[in-house]
Amino acid sequence: MKRKLTLKLIAKELDVSISTVSKALRDSAEISEDTRQKIKAFAKLYNYKPNNIALSLKNRKTRTIGIIIPQIVHHFFTTVIRGVEQMAREHNYNVIITLSNNDFDKEVLNMELLANGSTDGFILSLSKETMQKDDFRHLTEAIDQGMPVVMFDRIVDEIPCDKVLIDDREGAKLGVNHLIKTGCKKIAIITTEDYITIGKLRTKGYMEALESAGIEVDKDLILKLDAIDELNDKAKARIKHFLKGKDIDGVFTINEIFAVTAAKYIMEADKTIPEDVSIVSFSDGELSQHFVPSLTTVSQHGEEMGRKAAELLINKLERPEEEVEQYTTAYIDTSLIERESTKRVK
Amino acid sequence: MKRKLTLKLIAKELDVSISTVSKALRDSAEISEDTRQKIKAFAKLYNYKPNNIALSLKNRKTRTIGIIIPQIVHHFFTTVIRGVEQMAREHNYNVIITLSNNDFDKEVLNMELLANGSTDGFILSLSKETMQKDDFRHLTEAIDQGMPVVMFDRIVDEIPCDKVLIDDREGAKLGVNHLIKTGCKKIAIITTEDYITIGKLRTKGYMEALESAGIEVDKDLILKLDAIDELNDKAKARIKHFLKGKDIDGVFTINEIFAVTAAKYIMEADKTIPEDVSIVSFSDGELSQHFVPSLTTVSQHGEEMGRKAAELLINKLERPEEEVEQYTTAYIDTSLIERESTKRVK
Repeated sequence: MKRKLTLKLIAKELDVSISTVSKALRDSAEISEDTRQKIKAFAKLYNYKPNNIALSLKNRKTRTIGIIIPQIVHHFFTTVIRGVEQMAREHNYNVIITLSNNDFDKEVLNMELLANGSTDGFILSLSKETMQKDDFRHLTEAIDQGMPVVMFDRIVDEIPCDKVLIDDREGAKLGVNHLIKTGCKKIAIITTEDYITIGKLRTKGYMEALESAGIEVDKDLILKLDAIDELNDKAKARIKHFLKGKDIDGVFTINEIFAVTAAKYIMEADKTIPEDVSIVSFSDGELSQHFVPSLTTVSQHGEEMGRKAAELLINKLERPEEEVEQYTTAYIDTSLIERESTKRVK
Repeated sequence: MKRKLTLKLIAKELDVSISTVSKALRDSAEISEDTRQKIKAFAKLYNYKPNNIALSLKNRKTRTIGIIIPQIVHHFFTTVIRGVEQMAREHNYNVIITLSNNDFDKEVLNMELLANGSTDGFILSLSKETMQKDDFRHLTEAIDQGMPVVMFDRIVDEIPCDKVLIDDREGAKLGVNHLIKTGCKKIAIITTEDYITIGKLRTKGYMEALESAGIEVDKDLILKLDAIDELNDKAKARIKHFLKGKDIDGVFTINEIFAVTAAKYIMEADKTIPEDVSIVSFSDGELSQHFVPSLTTVSQHGEEMGRKAAELLINKLERPEEEVEQYTTAYIDTSLIERESTKRVK
């Protein structure tokens, strides 16, 4: 056969529609296995070459999702990534990850890198420095240019995009209420400075839980650290000093590093967990699970958060343009995981 | 834009796995004659050329380094990434990360994704499944086509590329010797099955250290698990059962998850660490640092490993073509970090 073989010619030869040929050649399940094989064999026999290498990929984008996170030496972020990976895989998307290292410049560079043709959209949690600077132009610009963005965990309300959050205040209340229910009356909190939204909200939840139970908030029992992901020696020393000789029977911390550090100093002071001092930590990771005693935690369900963020992004990517101008804020429920660091509810 | 035909696309078009395509293209007897012919015909038909990476390599500089790792819920990998990020930043390179999730197909996909114009070269640690399959075609092809690759930690000797390793055997000897020096005589090891190279080498180091000290190797004191990064309930139960009633005074583990799990069961059996049983773990992470008692570990210096891997890659990228045909294997020294889980050396 000398003529260039086209879809039309195949259709004519085999007495089927052009659409059937096209679908069969990209292995569409709409076409019976038998017909598909027949068409593909014919195409192969006569050396059919489509314009594009794979018909199914015509006009397709990168099918890649970018993730920008502050850092990964942090169990929570790794579980979010796991969730994004799962959902992406189910929808046949790739995932690439970049780190801002809690640095504003790096976050901006990463956004440029990912928006530059290698991804269709991205999922982002803000760096500590970006939150301090209060400068989000890099994000709003990308969004204005039509780049779909989903923010999670460390977000800013005013940015017009989809968001996935947990209710930090409710989560903290859940944890502190558990301490109250198990009989604690003098409950301390180890949290962050207020410019870190999650720290601020969790501190608020702690205060509300105490007030609802008729326990007066004591400023001396609140420690605010300028740390979030990793503890330096200075921060450790502040925790040690804060706990020393304090008359407390419960500690609520906004992350697990704060919790295990507090637990260590409590045990060093020959106090027993949970009999003398109970501990509840926000965020559930490897440290909480493997520590002895294992820690009661408020789980953020990072995997679910990642799945939701990916779902929102993929929805945006696969929807006609006129429908994409609405933004969703999805909340993921927290839950309490009871372990050995708290007493049983009486 | 014209799409390049990749292993992934062939697999998708023919509805077979990527691994099947890879094997068929190199005529593996594992694949039926019929399937092989079909795949090869398809590849030929659509002009599949594995060397299309090389075509795009020339005249292209993304100044981006790709990292492919098995997973990130693993402190060691996160420290390696930190090292790569540091060195990359010093040389004005970007870094993007992808995860294989210990899955062969995903590793191949990620390689195609990163080699597809978004990176200049990559740094890789093999997935568990790739090591089990013993199939490295995706890697050797990329290297043949001129893509600079640096492997670290989970590597394969035969692949011609730069490598960054620690001496796992020496590292294990360092750890076991420390147990011996502090008076332990009946030392158990919790390791992995031999197909995981690092497990095999660390087991070898354990045995050599015992033999040098005139202690006979007792097969009953060796537990080999089919796990590496995360412990499922079955693996935990095996550790518990292995330790139960055993007359031992030391445990060496090849990672810290094994170590904290063993420590927990030892303490549950009312034995004291380190007085009754001492513990040394390979690889130094958050768990070892924060556990009570904190764990004596053999540090792999992941950050340094990452820095070295990035340095080797950047050297390759910035050197004239005629000089790049030599491969380096760099060794990063391990060191012992003494903490509370071992006795003082007398």
